[in-house]
Amino acid sequence: MKPTIRDVAKMAAVSISTVSRVMNAPESVNESKRIRVLEAIEKLQYQPNSFARGLIYNKSFTFGLLIPDIENVFYTGIIRGMQDACIKLGYSLMICNTDRDRHRLLSYIDAFHEKQVDGIVFASDMMFPEYYAKLVRCKIPFVLLSTHSDEFEVPCVEIDDEKAAYDAAKFLVELGHREIGMIGFDHENSISGPPRFQGFARAMMEAGLDGNVKKVKGAAHRFEQAYQAAHELFTEYPGLTAVFCVADEFAMGVISYLKDRNILVPGQVSVVGFDNLRFANMFVPKLTTIAQPMYDMGYRAAEKLHELVTTGKVEVLREKMEHKLIVRESSREK
Amino acid sequence: MKPTIRDVAKMAAVSISTVSRVMNAPESVNESKRIRVLEAIEKLQYQPNSFARGLIYNKSFTFGLLIPDIENVFYTGIIRGMQDACIKLGYSLMICNTDRDRHRLLSYIDAFHEKQVDGIVFASDMMFPEYYAKLVRCKIPFVLLSTHSDEFEVPCVEIDDEKAAYDAAKFLVELGHREIGMIGFDHENSISGPPRFQGFARAMMEAGLDGNVKKVKGAAHRFEQAYQAAHELFTEYPGLTAVFCVADEFAMGVISYLKDRNILVPGQVSVVGFDNLRFANMFVPKLTTIAQPMYDMGYRAAEKLHELVTTGKVEVLREKMEHKLIVRESSREK
Repeated sequence: MKPTIRDVAKMAAVSISTVSRVMNAPESVNESKRIRVLEAIEKLQYQPNSFARGLIYNKSFTFGLLIPDIENVFYTGIIRGMQDACIKLGYSLMICNTDRDRHRLLSYIDAFHEKQVDGIVFASDMMFPEYYAKLVRCKIPFVLLSTHSDEFEVPCVEIDDEKAAYDAAKFLVELGHREIGMIGFDHENSISGPPRFQGFARAMMEAGLDGNVKKVKGAAHRFEQAYQAAHELFTEYPGLTAVFCVADEFAMGVISYLKDRNILVPGQVSVVGFDNLRFANMFVPKLTTIAQPMYDMGYRAAEKLHELVTTGKVEVLREKMEHKLIVRESSREK
Repeated sequence: MKPTIRDVAKMAAVSISTVSRVMNAPESVNESKRIRVLEAIEKLQYQPNSFARGLIYNKSFTFGLLIPDIENVFYTGIIRGMQDACIKLGYSLMICNTDRDRHRLLSYIDAFHEKQVDGIVFASDMMFPEYYAKLVRCKIPFVLLSTHSDEFEVPCVEIDDEKAAYDAAKFLVELGHREIGMIGFDHENSISGPPRFQGFARAMMEAGLDGNVKKVKGAAHRFEQAYQAAHELFTEYPGLTAVFCVADEFAMGVISYLKDRNILVPGQVSVVGFDNLRFANMFVPKLTTIAQPMYDMGYRAAEKLHELVTTGKVEVLREKMEHKLIVRESSREK
């Protein structure tokens, strides 16, 4: 059994509030009591822990991170960046995986509240009014990462999804492709799905390729679903010579599908992904993709949360980070 | 500012220990004081948090997980299993990434201690005496996952690394391969490195292929290092027709190297990995590999920690989980 403040009080024969005062404002406690309390703390190896630190500073020097899907490698880069910033700023980082489950997410907010985290980074999911209300009720400052809220004034760090998708699609046009399709997010609550589709559509219409705007199939979050979506896309539009995918994992699914049909990538079909996961550079062929600055996004989110926690506000409410097209092996001139 | 027990006490005009008693043993507090405290709690929206819960139960209903490398997808399966078990058992799960950094690991143990976690799962790293001593000093129960300790009596959940490597290497022998190499872990503190090498060596010697035991190159943890190790291995032993890799990421590095040399996998060289990451089934070609039951390992580790926390002991100190050879596309008969 870990010793508690109660055990210290008992051994020193003082009240709990006296123990608390010894740790908080020792000069307010008379010397003999103070010495008894300090001796009890030593004997019991009672470490001034979150109880004591909480009472003293009302601050736990911990940030919480809520991510929707730990199996999505996108988050690992974010976690690295956020962790490095936390170390620099003097915070511990605790990560909880919500699995996009409403009930689990709400209970993790409770857990973070109970652990007195100083702030939460909420990554990449829709900020439903219910979540917002709970965070506000718990009085926990929070920052959105790779998502934003149109309804509420919440600080966020994200990329320009529309522009990034536009850049990827325009790149395929500039390579000479005319028959271009897309694998997008089909999740009804997707935050980045709609702007990425809009970016694709803008590039197509600018190039006079309006007919491609309908050559789009959706997948949820996984490789297998993208494989199936590629099957639907190529069955309906067998003449496609290029596909823009809104996630690297989707690009891998599309390439696997094409390989199973003996269609060469990039020989016959060019494929562009999105994210620039570590695996994008390990895949065969290596993926051409839109790099999101995942490390920097995580780092900035932690800095922004620190700014919010310490000053009560942020200078820039919605911060946009730079994306970048990385050309590797999965794309080629038509 | 989040309200604290101090604010409640002030508003109710009682001592902190009275507030604590109201939450702890309300019948011991006279009615008028009790009502004042409850009203203050309501008005301030003071949620009985870790302070109160800790004082009441001396238990935080939280487990901590220490992982060495969040970018290693191996851990994501473990986290899923551990999380599901935690939900079933009524715990929150908080994850910290140590980056194999001694200082960071020690400071996360402090953070977990301060947050009063009920127990810690320590994954896949060497249990150095310094870490052991700190965990014991903090009186936090802990379980080792995918690692074990020869020095200390610590409960653990892992696979039989020697037997798993033996099975992979024997499979290559049975396919008719005679020139077989290996890419192992070169990290001096690797826990699974030595037994996996021993399993490989045993299979080779059993088949009278003792000469292969020296055809081994080491890599640390990443794709790029395995790519380089493959270069060294094939430069020294160009006649190899099969390679056993102690990690799927290494198998991907070897296959990429061979592809860059226009050597076909599995046409000319068979490659077997280890782990069965999600990406093993997404790679081109799909990897033949040793599946570790990552989800089940995470699940069991949480159950074992719960057993340890609630009963003070475990029935089985060292629990071995079953591995399984999964044959896919990266291996072929010689």
